[in-house]
Amino acid sequence: MDDVMADATGQFINFYEKEFGVRVSRESLNHKAEMERFPENHDVVYSFTLRKDFFRTMAVNDHAQKVIKELNQKYELFIVSSAMEFPNSLPEKLEWLKEHFPFLHWKQFVFCGRKSIVHGDYMIDDLPHNLETFNGEKLLFSAPHNLQFDQFKRMNGWREVGEFLLK
Amino acid sequence: MDDVMADATGQFINFYEKEFGVRVSRESLNHKAEMERFPENHDVVYSFTLRKDFFRTMAVNDHAQKVIKELNQKYELFIVSSAMEFPNSLPEKLEWLKEHFPFLHWKQFVFCGRKSIVHGDYMIDDLPHNLETFNGEKLLFSAPHNLQFDQFKRMNGWREVGEFLLK
Repeated sequence: MDDVMADATGQFINFYEKEFGVRVSRESLNHKAEMERFPENHDVVYSFTLRKDFFRTMAVNDHAQKVIKELNQKYELFIVSSAMEFPNSLPEKLEWLKEHFPFLHWKQFVFCGRKSIVHGDYMIDDLPHNLETFNGEKLLFSAPHNLQFDQFKRMNGWREVGEFLLK
Repeated sequence: MDDVMADATGQFINFYEKEFGVRVSRESLNHKAEMERFPENHDVVYSFTLRKDFFRTMAVNDHAQKVIKELNQKYELFIVSSAMEFPNSLPEKLEWLKEHFPFLHWKQFVFCGRKSIVHGDYMIDDLPHNLETFNGEKLLFSAPHNLQFDQFKRMNGWREVGEFLLK
């Protein structure tokens, strides 16, 4: 979900601006590890994830709804999210999915810790360590924090996912 | 979790007694489908799952803590629970696990809809439809609602699980 379906990076930028009055550009975060990408106040940035509505109010990434709706017609689709680290995210992520992806069923949702437990034909993920343990084809969804990795097939946004998996 | 690690059946019996003043015996529920096992008021019984603390206050099944602690030392262990149908259960199940199984890490928890997405060497479950889609060895954990099934290896309680998987 985060930085694949949902604009987690944009949410961090918004919360950072509200907290410190500084608007950080999306480009300045490129190639930086998730928790060290802001100029300072890293502990506070991490704590944003514990605040009410952080996960609930994320924007949907471009074209995610359209492409996922079509994927859902062609494939047996699951949404697998590493949510367990942030207990407050569990109900918020569920509500977020129901609002923005009403065509998905709760039977398709998986909130977990480690993703090594899931298997399938394709995994689309922004984090290399999630892809590494997957049995099927691994697709790295581009995000500022993963631009330095080149060992996986890269998907630059949902349109590219659609071109690759729906043709 | 429900009727494997946690005494879900006992919780239904307790809530039924509190609501209708009738103490149903555990044995009277044998061989009956989950949602038709009480004498009447089936819709109300189902709605117990939506009440606050239904999942949070379940008793731990006998010997579950000791055996799971030992399994956790020998195996890569995951707790996979069909929780997504009951949104309120998500935080409650997480708190329940942290209270009763403090030796487990959140990275080991999976709250899902369908369990067909997970794979592994062994699955211990009380519901045949969860076992049917599993790739590894399927172990049916005895519960009143599954005594009529005989297509899976049966585990009568956690001591038997320990004898089978820890020897």
